Amino acid sequence: MRAAVYRGERSVVPTEADPVAPGAGEVRIAVAYTGLCGTDLHIVHGAMDARVDTPLVFGHEMSGTVESVGDGVTDWAVGDVVTVMPLVWDGTCPACRAGNSHICQNLVFVGIDAPGSLQELWTVPEELLVRVPDGLSLRHAALTEPVAVAVHDVRRSGLGVDDRTVVIGGGPIGVLIATVARHAGADVVVIEPEAGRRERIAQLGFATLDPTSTDQSAWVDEWTGGAGADVVFEVSGAAAAVRGATSLVKVRGTLVVVAIHSAPREIDLQRLFWRELTILGARVYQRGDFETAVRLLRDGVIPAQSLITAVVPLDETSAALTELEQGRALKILVDVAGES
Amino acid sequence: MRAAVYRGERSVVPTEADPVAPGAGEVRIAVAYTGLCGTDLHIVHGAMDARVDTPLVFGHEMSGTVESVGDGVTDWAVGDVVTVMPLVWDGTCPACRAGNSHICQNLVFVGIDAPGSLQELWTVPEELLVRVPDGLSLRHAALTEPVAVAVHDVRRSGLGVDDRTVVIGGGPIGVLIATVARHAGADVVVIEPEAGRRERIAQLGFATLDPTSTDQSAWVDEWTGGAGADVVFEVSGAAAAVRGATSLVKVRGTLVVVAIHSAPREIDLQRLFWRELTILGARVYQRGDFETAVRLLRDGVIPAQSLITAVVPLDETSAALTELEQGRALKILVDVAGES
Repeated sequence: MRAAVYRGERSVVPTEADPVAPGAGEVRIAVAYTGLCGTDLHIVHGAMDARVDTPLVFGHEMSGTVESVGDGVTDWAVGDVVTVMPLVWDGTCPACRAGNSHICQNLVFVGIDAPGSLQELWTVPEELLVRVPDGLSLRHAALTEPVAVAVHDVRRSGLGVDDRTVVIGGGPIGVLIATVARHAGADVVVIEPEAGRRERIAQLGFATLDPTSTDQSAWVDEWTGGAGADVVFEVSGAAAAVRGATSLVKVRGTLVVVAIHSAPREIDLQRLFWRELTILGARVYQRGDFETAVRLLRDGVIPAQSLITAVVPLDETSAALTELEQGRALKILVDVAGES
Repeated sequence: MRAAVYRGERSVVPTEADPVAPGAGEVRIAVAYTGLCGTDLHIVHGAMDARVDTPLVFGHEMSGTVESVGDGVTDWAVGDVVTVMPLVWDGTCPACRAGNSHICQNLVFVGIDAPGSLQELWTVPEELLVRVPDGLSLRHAALTEPVAVAVHDVRRSGLGVDDRTVVIGGGPIGVLIATVARHAGADVVVIEPEAGRRERIAQLGFATLDPTSTDQSAWVDEWTGGAGADVVFEVSGAAAAVRGATSLVKVRGTLVVVAIHSAPREIDLQRLFWRELTILGARVYQRGDFETAVRLLRDGVIPAQSLITAVVPLDETSAALTELEQGRALKILVDVAGES
């Protein structure tokens, strides 16, 4: 079978590989589509070389059908349409024991810490499978994982109906958070410096702000009658965004940090104190978020067609990552099965 | 009557002044004791000169008895023993309308933005009065305001029974937070670099850590079986404390920022994200916190006698502030009525 393999030093090579037979409690999936994301870029750029073992088959946003099942698997049958929640927890660490297994202190993220879905046949523990309902295409189902991130972030924010909500950063996760927040009844503005992205976001019906030409704080103040935003999502990863974010939030409002900030960031703790703000970290998802995500995709809440800006063959994974890096694409799917 | 007046340029001068007659809805209090705190030091050091009008009678931690009442005051009578919650809100700003009047966007903090209690006769709106119950002395009642801060901070933290709790900074507010947290069933350690303070805190029955000689993160890890602390209070105001604080908190745990950080601080947002931490700002108090504070003082939960390290006459306010600045005192009371 074919697989896309990260070999270190920014090199992603299409490779012939032997499929792994499903062991007891495992399921082998014929992968249909795998989406590429910022984490994949991080891997390929070498930023996670200390964590990953090479050669690595990466990829963790996917859809497919069950191809075979191992001993003892009774809940899944050949032909079932599925996606995978790519988390394996140990069940014994303090976080797991406290009920937070999705951020287990020894979490294995499949596609980073274990082989991922950029291969034609992918073997995973059966517990990771999530059923794709009738009416949801394999292409759109491949968006489940990033949609689950957005569902998790919005759920964690505690956002309510009519809440004035600011999303800082208009990449795929930012757009998905904006979409889920709007579906939850919020009034949403997206802050994004890149004009092409702003245009696409506006076409989805969102207000947008260009932070390079707008006084965001004054704009939000005016928008909210002097109160400030109920919820702000920091999805940009930029130091300047963090410095400015607290000034956008109302008294007792919430700032959710979704982006990965690899360096310490300066933050206005005086403002945090003065307005009794809440800052929350939000990471990955729980099972319920994944199940909500497939329903939102099936119901057409997520503008999947607008988000998927390209579908490419497996052998062009490397070129697709380069395109993603240039920031013009939103979501690129790899057609792993070669059926597009 | 006598008053202690901040005249700018680090100068605090005992002054003869005319008492203000209580207007409609106002009460005049014969002040017994006024506690000095870090905010008073900030004022006298000139750090708040842009905010305060000089000459300023400062002071906002107090006890006293009602001396006279203005027209329409029916809930208070001459001789009532009282303390004052020194907040005046406008009732109309977005924060007030949302139910957060204690941090009104136009809050008047009495003793900073309006004359305070370092005067023999102090006139305030009747709504600010809180009754001092039988069995609570005037000296101890003067601690109500800082105790209310601690009650508010602990309430806001969501801390529960048996929670492993770290208090960074062993000044008066840190000790009060530790005390209230312990009363709420938490297991508390206080991190404090100054040996004399550590000794006093240990005498109150708390575990202490010296951050200059202990790997705090390793200590907390060991203490909590690898989980991290449920709640961490940052009461030190130090940049290094903020940098280290996130490493002490468990998955989904809470860091409460109580100290004033006048400059932006570097914070580990990667850790916030990774462990889905919550960072909360906590400022002043609500009416319920004040009422809880007088009960905790009456019931002897607060080690008031140990916290009050000196009682000085009004004319020695300036010298007392100098002693406070040197960091050896915990709480110094000014005997405004000259009865000690």
